[in-house]
Amino acid sequence: MLKNRTVVVGLGATGRAIASSLLRRADVEIVGAADRDPRVVGQDLGVLLAGAANGVVVVSDPAELPAADLAIVATVSDLHRAADVLLPLLERSYNVLSICEELAHPWRSHPDLARRLDDTAKAHGVTVLGGGANPGVLMDTLPLLLTALTQRVESVRIRRRTNMARYGAILSKFGLGLTLREFATARSRGEVVGHHGFEQAIGALAAGLGWDLDSVDVGEVEPAVVTTSPRVGDHMRIEPGQIAAVTHAARGVLKGEVVIDLEITFGFFDPADEVAAGDDYRIVGEEQVVDLRSSVGFDSFLSTVAAAVNASTAVVEARPGLLSMGDLPARSVAAKGERRAGRTPLGATTSQD
Amino acid sequence: MLKNRTVVVGLGATGRAIASSLLRRADVEIVGAADRDPRVVGQDLGVLLAGAANGVVVVSDPAELPAADLAIVATVSDLHRAADVLLPLLERSYNVLSICEELAHPWRSHPDLARRLDDTAKAHGVTVLGGGANPGVLMDTLPLLLTALTQRVESVRIRRRTNMARYGAILSKFGLGLTLREFATARSRGEVVGHHGFEQAIGALAAGLGWDLDSVDVGEVEPAVVTTSPRVGDHMRIEPGQIAAVTHAARGVLKGEVVIDLEITFGFFDPADEVAAGDDYRIVGEEQVVDLRSSVGFDSFLSTVAAAVNASTAVVEARPGLLSMGDLPARSVAAKGERRAGRTPLGATTSQD
Repeated sequence: MLKNRTVVVGLGATGRAIASSLLRRADVEIVGAADRDPRVVGQDLGVLLAGAANGVVVVSDPAELPAADLAIVATVSDLHRAADVLLPLLERSYNVLSICEELAHPWRSHPDLARRLDDTAKAHGVTVLGGGANPGVLMDTLPLLLTALTQRVESVRIRRRTNMARYGAILSKFGLGLTLREFATARSRGEVVGHHGFEQAIGALAAGLGWDLDSVDVGEVEPAVVTTSPRVGDHMRIEPGQIAAVTHAARGVLKGEVVIDLEITFGFFDPADEVAAGDDYRIVGEEQVVDLRSSVGFDSFLSTVAAAVNASTAVVEARPGLLSMGDLPARSVAAKGERRAGRTPLGATTSQD
Repeated sequence: MLKNRTVVVGLGATGRAIASSLLRRADVEIVGAADRDPRVVGQDLGVLLAGAANGVVVVSDPAELPAADLAIVATVSDLHRAADVLLPLLERSYNVLSICEELAHPWRSHPDLARRLDDTAKAHGVTVLGGGANPGVLMDTLPLLLTALTQRVESVRIRRRTNMARYGAILSKFGLGLTLREFATARSRGEVVGHHGFEQAIGALAAGLGWDLDSVDVGEVEPAVVTTSPRVGDHMRIEPGQIAAVTHAARGVLKGEVVIDLEITFGFFDPADEVAAGDDYRIVGEEQVVDLRSSVGFDSFLSTVAAAVNASTAVVEARPGLLSMGDLPARSVAAKGERRAGRTPLGATTSQD
């Protein structure tokens, strides 16, 4: 089997989950890994991922990584900072997939940098792609595919309510666990930033639909639920009087009308809340309204890891330049893991309905 | 604006709806149309579509059509019969999009013909694609995209319950409006055939997921609801004692397990029925279950027309050969109609929730 030689840059929680997933793939060989954290540098990647040693020693500088077909970058959400890693990798002719949210569709939000990434990738005959679940699939590629069912879209509205109880450090960027007073202070200091990727998802949607938007308005993170009883997550406990859920929203405006309306509520949900986990899609088309609801919702972390890993082969095979998930065939981003016989056969799942 | 010169072959209900839609597109020019029906041949296409004359005269033989970038074929579901039209068009270097269900992913169901279509298209540098909503999007490309959110898929199950009250002639192939006795006779004569495209959707799903299925089993159409009260559609009235809904199902088996389970119930639904219109998706992944429900469902006819028209530009631009909808980027199949300001702004739709 032809294996894609792959390096992983950034071994935080997501980078490690991606690396672990890649290690299980028969069509991928991890040949290098890099991270700036001195506690990690010099370690064997396999051991770091709680498995057997695999001879890949973590280096501190991506410049020390061996040549490979693909570099997967899981470092920061800010594209200007990410570009300091992405551009040298492209110049060394790696195809690059990064979960940097602002890379997902940066043509509107970062036009100069988008052009530079595109030019650099093309000059070296490689692809660079911002890939993940959101942005990447949930609020851009999936609704774009659904619009195929109508000749003309009037509006796209998506409401995500995502359970954050499994998360740890990332919760601070949403302000969960703060009091209203602490939240106001933290937000004014720029410590509460909420969801990264609204501008990029709206940019991808508008581009796909041929809409030249007047504006993309990203709101501030707002408290949604202050709890009256303790709520316990995997890595955090939210006490009475603290914020258990926040809402972050963004809108795309065309000719004075809101035509794209995205909102995510992040929280530790309780059955007594007015909001429950789940995702709602509404695409108002000319002939019909497409209404889809996921009552369970999509796990952000697991979905991001899967979407990045599943798209990795497609990035190597795609045409050179800066691409987005919506530029890849659905077939090429489908799940790649080999199905194991005997695991959760369909007969067993139907009885759970 | 660069216009795709397009010809339309087949002017039944779907072909006419496609042609009407294309006539509204600023980036498409219809330069020819063909249909075997002598009542249609010689007519002006614009007049036939209940609009102004546009100078395109319907011909009886596709061989008489002028050269164009794209031929859209809306004739029959049977690929062997459709190929008699498709192959000569490819040999004349048209890119071809057909709503022939068996063209959607014929590699498993019609391997020799698939190869011949692929070879012919490549030899002439053009693309041939089976495009529509189902097969095309609903039971193949959409679930494939959703699998991007999991690293490994255990099973895919889809339940469609689609309202047929707007349909006319097509109802006979489902056996709606027959008594149970009439249904049994008609089915034994091969007059009740149900849904076309299960094998192709399952083929596309399995190929996208890398599954080499043991078998694809398409069941017989079965009566689901015999009504006790009259049900009135646009073109048919179903009387007490007649069949108001039927079910058709298909399964893909891998290593002895059902891993793809598709079922559609076609009917004139009543609130008292056990089934109601709507679509349910369940993808059991390794890490999470993706559960999506459309409580309204997707209109089959409108969705098919839209999906074909929206994909038409992508067919012209795609690489040569036989492709499927899942081979096209989501961006390229998104709705193409220009949004008109002032129609159904989002503010008006939110109040309907």
